[in-house]
Amino acid sequence: MYKVDLNCDLGESFGPYKIGMDEDILKFITSANIACGFHAGDPAVMRKTVKLALENKAAIGAHPGLPDLVGFGRRNMSVSPQDVYDMVVYQVGALSAFVKAEGGKMQHVKPHGALYNMAAKDQGLSQAIAKAIYKVDSQLILFGLSGSELIKAGEDMGLRTASEVFADRTYQKDGSLTPRTREDALITNSEAAISQVIKMVIEGKVHCQQGFDIPIKADTICIHGDGVHALTFAQEINKQLKAYNIDVKNF
Amino acid sequence: MYKVDLNCDLGESFGPYKIGMDEDILKFITSANIACGFHAGDPAVMRKTVKLALENKAAIGAHPGLPDLVGFGRRNMSVSPQDVYDMVVYQVGALSAFVKAEGGKMQHVKPHGALYNMAAKDQGLSQAIAKAIYKVDSQLILFGLSGSELIKAGEDMGLRTASEVFADRTYQKDGSLTPRTREDALITNSEAAISQVIKMVIEGKVHCQQGFDIPIKADTICIHGDGVHALTFAQEINKQLKAYNIDVKNF
Amino acid sequence: MYKVDLNCDLGESFGPYKIGMDEDILKFITSANIACGFHAGDPAVMRKTVKLALENKAAIGAHPGLPDLVGFGRRNMSVSPQDVYDMVVYQVGALSAFVKAEGGKMQHVKPHGALYNMAAKDQGLSQAIAKAIYKVDSQLILFGLSGSELIKAGEDMGLRTASEVFADRTYQKDGSLTPRTREDALITNSEAAISQVIKMVIEGKVHCQQGFDIPIKADTICIHGDGVHALTFAQEINKQLKAYNIDVKNF
Amino acid sequence: MYKVDLNCDLGESFGPYKIGMDEDILKFITSANIACGFHAGDPAVMRKTVKLALENKAAIGAHPGLPDLVGFGRRNMSVSPQDVYDMVVYQVGALSAFVKAEGGKMQHVKPHGALYNMAAKDQGLSQAIAKAIYKVDSQLILFGLSGSELIKAGEDMGLRTASEVFADRTYQKDGSLTPRTREDALITNSEAAISQVIKMVIEGKVHCQQGFDIPIKADTICIHGDGVHALTFAQEINKQLKAYNIDVKNF
Repeated sequence: MYKVDLNCDLGESFGPYKIGMDEDILKFITSANIACGFHAGDPAVMRKTVKLALENKAAIGAHPGLPDLVGFGRRNMSVSPQDVYDMVVYQVGALSAFVKAEGGKMQHVKPHGALYNMAAKDQGLSQAIAKAIYKVDSQLILFGLSGSELIKAGEDMGLRTASEVFADRTYQKDGSLTPRTREDALITNSEAAISQVIKMVIEGKVHCQQGFDIPIKADTICIHGDGVHALTFAQEINKQLKAYNIDVKNF
Repeated sequence: MYKVDLNCDLGESFGPYKIGMDEDILKFITSANIACGFHAGDPAVMRKTVKLALENKAAIGAHPGLPDLVGFGRRNMSVSPQDVYDMVVYQVGALSAFVKAEGGKMQHVKPHGALYNMAAKDQGLSQAIAKAIYKVDSQLILFGLSGSELIKAGEDMGLRTASEVFADRTYQKDGSLTPRTREDALITNSEAAISQVIKMVIEGKVHCQQGFDIPIKADTICIHGDGVHALTFAQEINKQLKAYNIDVKNF
Repeated sequence: MYKVDLNCDLGESFGPYKIGMDEDILKFITSANIACGFHAGDPAVMRKTVKLALENKAAIGAHPGLPDLVGFGRRNMSVSPQDVYDMVVYQVGALSAFVKAEGGKMQHVKPHGALYNMAAKDQGLSQAIAKAIYKVDSQLILFGLSGSELIKAGEDMGLRTASEVFADRTYQKDGSLTPRTREDALITNSEAAISQVIKMVIEGKVHCQQGFDIPIKADTICIHGDGVHALTFAQEINKQLKAYNIDVKNF
Repeated sequence: MYKVDLNCDLGESFGPYKIGMDEDILKFITSANIACGFHAGDPAVMRKTVKLALENKAAIGAHPGLPDLVGFGRRNMSVSPQDVYDMVVYQVGALSAFVKAEGGKMQHVKPHGALYNMAAKDQGLSQAIAKAIYKVDSQLILFGLSGSELIKAGEDMGLRTASEVFADRTYQKDGSLTPRTREDALITNSEAAISQVIKMVIEGKVHCQQGFDIPIKADTICIHGDGVHALTFAQEINKQLKAYNIDVKNF
């Protein structure tokens, strides 16, 4: 039987500021990536989100980002591998304390935003992330872009990895995502997005923008957590996967 | 045989900014309280300081503070017990990840500055700190002002506690420190400071400003880590304690 | 003819986080207090909010707060008068640059949250705020709680002041606001709130919780900017004031 | 008579952290670039440094940087021109308030670290900086790397500009600085460094690493403010320039 995980970024509120519909989206996902206070989140939000995830039986992951709250961790920074190692150890540790305090167990780590994107193409940064995770807890699973440097670095380090795919993004023939600057980067049609995902899970292939199928590994699907549309989409993808007899569960 | 621990605040540098003489002072102390990034310290400094402490066989403790870098965590804030619980879980978790990554084990937690002082007199804040520590790791030892609410809260929670005394501060008849605003708050004479400490360890008493001895519990002595004088003093106190056949070691 | 100003806190969004309905509320108010990046707001939000206020012909004021983003500047901190002087100069300067860049002129300064409340009762902090404003621009108007230390400090410094009153808060016989911890602190009935305000403007009196009228100076009314109810209330108070022939305008 | 300005980065301390020997270096320089709280500095440090500069009759400039305190503003960030415009307006405004409060007048703006280096080669960022300065105060002088995009953007905007040269860095044939990654980037010999500067001021030329002279504009020389060597060097360069009858003064 086929199987896939649905993950979503959660816990991105901060102080008086609210982002996301964590309580609602948790009904449809199986893994929660929780922000750790650098690009979003704060200690109170982390505690509440960990609790909420546990109540909803979603697996918990740390979602470390660059130290750029005002930019939401989406702006690249010329950080060194050592910088990245340090910020990942710190953030994974902070979240793991909340998980422990609530009686849970952390499943995975997924880097956020610019850190995720830079690492996808940068061996040094990816190795730093993998090493940080391994040294804090060698049982943690590293989530990274399918086919990226991050997945390779995780495997080289001896970590379990989960290859992540996107429902609403198109792919290039080398397996990379079509850059957002291009018009054909996004799949706006819900049915097409869901079909792409089902094909990735069942056939292990994606139809690239150059017009043919390429192989892709789909262990976990990234679900967006913001906006009413996102909620409907999460519900629909969850339902369709099950209709295709695909087991939706975490690791 | 009598026994006492010598603790010192370390890892208070930040980014390009350096404070303290961590490498030097580590030769004379037995427990290191390492800043966790809220009032001082950053992920790189935390990693380096943990490593340095391990190399010097000093026991490691988290030193969580208020989120006030520019004020060095020394300005009181009207934080709620929930705020304090959250910030302690977060900071203890962050430091513990570095300790784990370096192959060490955390011994204790000592709140910093205004957090330490507010908690000393506030039951609610003290209970929040004790609960945070207990839920993250019930084996951690809570360092607090001898006779304070913090020690009581730790005991009530079932934590091991270490009662902290000060060599260079005078005491009042109720066992509290003479407020810094008063002229007789500090003991500036090194010999007098060391004599006070030895009396506290051996006799379990301190001569208060009202002119008589009061009982005091002295498990650990706070050593300052900044300034040339501090270094000489640390060396001297370490030497004198040993001369009195007092075992200087951590827990 | 009677006259009163309606002020509201604006520009409290931060990075990806949105708070308030600035565009809507600006239609009903005459003075905008714009956050300056310490408790809320960021440079981009400040620029946009200044522009928006100018387009809506609302007068612009700086709204400096304590350096506590996660606490939204609502937690008291034991800051010194010098600390406060420095943070007010800094924030007023930052906002004034955006006002200048957009071709406007700053009208006033209103401290935010805990800074406003602490200053209301603390002469030293109030004098520090008044001095900071005076030295940056002696033409600025200081907004403060009617009858507070802040208004006195502003007058002593030679600043123009505007005494602020609240529509939805009850008053004590000494002119202070009923503390929020008490059940009768808030006026939840819209009509009662508007009646209170009209009485304050026309008669210069408020009916205190002890059952009699006391004198009060009402130069400007604080309007809340968050929540759908706030918007309706702002519209209604604006309309009712005009119905009573009270001129709603800034200074 | 030849003339040149000597500028130095000052006010880089933060909270309890001290960097630089501002009081000493101020005796030998003519323009002070004061950090504005994003990469270094805080409101208290800004006030003190402005005062110190005025006492020493050094001209004052704002020294805005990227929002990266832990990285000291030295790490490139993928900021947009709009981001940069906003952060420059904010920081220039904040410093200008302290200058006004102390009765002084701001002379110039010099971007810091990564912002300076990125702008040197990026037309969009340079135009954003020039526009921000112009809109806050069109009389301010923009300091930028001699021959850089920043100088061009300043001229295009109608700002006065000052072309900055470095005593201790070698140059390439296109007028750019030899990258720090290369072994021949630095001039470690004091006499050679001073000779290079004097040649730049008097002849308007620098001997590039390719072995011949190229034209260069030298309005202001960058002096480092940290380390004992820096102080001696500042004193020596000041003395030698005067010995060559070059007038050392600001604009």
